[in-house]
Amino acid sequence: MLNKLRLLTPGPTPLPERVRLALARDMIHHRKSDFMAVMARVQKRLCELFGTKGPVLPLACSGTGAMTAAVYSLFRPGDAVLVVEGGKFGERWTEIARMRGLEPVIVSVPWGSAVDPAAVAKTLDENPGIRGVLMQISETSTGVLHPVRDVAAVTRARDVLLVADGISAVGLSPCPMDEWGIDCLLTGSQKGLMLPPGLALIALSDRAWERAEAEKPGCFYFDLPAERKKLAGNQTHFTSPVNLIVGLDESLDMLLEDGLDTIYKKQWALTAMTRAGAAAMGFDLFAPDHFAWGITSIVLPFGVDGQKVLASAQEKYGVCMAGGQDRLKGRIVRIGHMGWVDWADVLAGLHALARSVIDCGGFTASQDYLEIAMSAYRAAIDVPPGAPVPAVFVRS
Amino acid sequence: MLNKLRLLTPGPTPLPERVRLALARDMIHHRKSDFMAVMARVQKRLCELFGTKGPVLPLACSGTGAMTAAVYSLFRPGDAVLVVEGGKFGERWTEIARMRGLEPVIVSVPWGSAVDPAAVAKTLDENPGIRGVLMQISETSTGVLHPVRDVAAVTRARDVLLVADGISAVGLSPCPMDEWGIDCLLTGSQKGLMLPPGLALIALSDRAWERAEAEKPGCFYFDLPAERKKLAGNQTHFTSPVNLIVGLDESLDMLLEDGLDTIYKKQWALTAMTRAGAAAMGFDLFAPDHFAWGITSIVLPFGVDGQKVLASAQEKYGVCMAGGQDRLKGRIVRIGHMGWVDWADVLAGLHALARSVIDCGGFTASQDYLEIAMSAYRAAIDVPPGAPVPAVFVRS
Repeated sequence: MLNKLRLLTPGPTPLPERVRLALARDMIHHRKSDFMAVMARVQKRLCELFGTKGPVLPLACSGTGAMTAAVYSLFRPGDAVLVVEGGKFGERWTEIARMRGLEPVIVSVPWGSAVDPAAVAKTLDENPGIRGVLMQISETSTGVLHPVRDVAAVTRARDVLLVADGISAVGLSPCPMDEWGIDCLLTGSQKGLMLPPGLALIALSDRAWERAEAEKPGCFYFDLPAERKKLAGNQTHFTSPVNLIVGLDESLDMLLEDGLDTIYKKQWALTAMTRAGAAAMGFDLFAPDHFAWGITSIVLPFGVDGQKVLASAQEKYGVCMAGGQDRLKGRIVRIGHMGWVDWADVLAGLHALARSVIDCGGFTASQDYLEIAMSAYRAAIDVPPGAPVPAVFVRS
Repeated sequence: MLNKLRLLTPGPTPLPERVRLALARDMIHHRKSDFMAVMARVQKRLCELFGTKGPVLPLACSGTGAMTAAVYSLFRPGDAVLVVEGGKFGERWTEIARMRGLEPVIVSVPWGSAVDPAAVAKTLDENPGIRGVLMQISETSTGVLHPVRDVAAVTRARDVLLVADGISAVGLSPCPMDEWGIDCLLTGSQKGLMLPPGLALIALSDRAWERAEAEKPGCFYFDLPAERKKLAGNQTHFTSPVNLIVGLDESLDMLLEDGLDTIYKKQWALTAMTRAGAAAMGFDLFAPDHFAWGITSIVLPFGVDGQKVLASAQEKYGVCMAGGQDRLKGRIVRIGHMGWVDWADVLAGLHALARSVIDCGGFTASQDYLEIAMSAYRAAIDVPPGAPVPAVFVRS
């Protein structure tokens, strides 16, 4: 009774009551008109969310399922693909590509840094056989935001498909697919969309559809042309994840009632707040320059055990945050501020982080980090999305 | 306000309130101890449900995803497999096998009939290269229950894996995996388990695990050895469908509180009731001899349009039933009586069927079909599961 559980992880995120009540509705049949009406409503707004003329295909799987669907639908064994590898999920692209029998050409980026679009262009020039670029928009393991728009400018000028993992980006920061020239954009339900995991969404450009239609699907369960055909009748190829789609109908209402610009502004302000608070504590930010709008990675002071910090935050303060993955385990804390999270949740998260670091033998530089964080939030909430980053949030 | 919606389809099925409230719970994190405790509880009871020493792997996908996982994990391109094809889902095994590059040897069974285990044995004898048998336990498109136990006796005596689609069987009629000698049993969440679609479950025998460990997974998203490794720590390989697993925790409570024997007895009685009612109306039963315990397929009188019957049942009586698929479209009605459905729902379904046939220009043989159906239910509810079928329910 002392603490409420506060989920400040980079997915899954807390669920709004409206969504939870929608998830609890009794079942309807996925081949009947009442469900097809939901699908039609959802489809229209998914196109707005993705910034595409559509269609946006719902798949019953996790985000990794959609990544698998992209690789197994757009490429054939033996194809060369460029992978931007700057974290655990970049490495996942490589693993998927290898299992599919592709030949990944890796553009390696230091964890915490963003890819240089010129490096992508150079690698494509040197390897004219490359048929696609696989990358993250937001690399969830590091908190980096890659310059996808600039990479798209490179791929659009070539016969190379840009496949962008938007799992920690769609609904969190702008990534208008058609305007930027992304060929395949995908996401999962448990991040910006404020839903439980288990539903993925994927959309293709015209030239990606041409490729998908020309290739034989590499996995029976992920047959995008068959899905598109079925979606024209407001159904899915296989049994739909009905209650997640009914929940999506509700979460899209919430996101679009306020307008996407408001959502992005909120995400920007929560990011500014978290970064200002962490910097005021005296901690390094792991993604100093190019950072995501839904997650902040914070480097722990030397000698402080990240696993213990997380355990203390959860047990003593009820705040559930994420640690580093793989080589970053114990070294960083990742605060998720995505989905159904607001400034007061982040305030609690910052305080739990500071006190837990102290509990684990570390110290913080400032007593005023909460007030500094709130000032940053208040200032940022009136800053238009995409405006230059105030220097105070950038720490290298 | 005139009618409530009654879902009498062979999946998805209505949801119990307890499950719906569980689905509405706020999110917990799939890598933290509270979720791992749910997974441990669920795993123990899934082993009881499947009749296996385990493990039973949860996958975030529909039942077709689990079928894909089985084919892509247990066989390699070029392998010969025997497919029992007696309906749409038997044909789906063939499609999956072909897309994986296998060479299916088809044992074709007339739709409405069950496979003869001797025919399976003969085909295996004639094709010693066959490495597996792919079949349904309950073929949802026809309402047939195949004699899987007898087929398992054939495969156990050979180096041939028996892969059984239990999507319309697990939790509906007995199929104890280890006792019968099934090598791979799989199901989906939206039938006997009284959950929304989006979660699949799959278990392997020891010799199937040996095969899976020896093969390279054919699809990145379906890596059963990696799933098993992660499940040992009560997690899934990729992000778990958290709210479906929390719902499963509740539905397993409901199924096992009364005991599986009670569940099977109820399913048997609902089947007897539906068949007796349909026979009393004068309608042929599409699966006269070997029939599933969760679905009854009824042949419509000549000249009556099945699509119109279904529309009338839904619009005038609020009862949602399924029609025939592919070549059976318009010719049969499939009444689902699985999951959270009881005798009163079936009573409503039978009445809606009879009145809708009359509305569409047909007629029924008897006015007493409802009382006859209820008598069959009352008699059957005290018959032990698996007892000989009273002659009244069998109509050829």
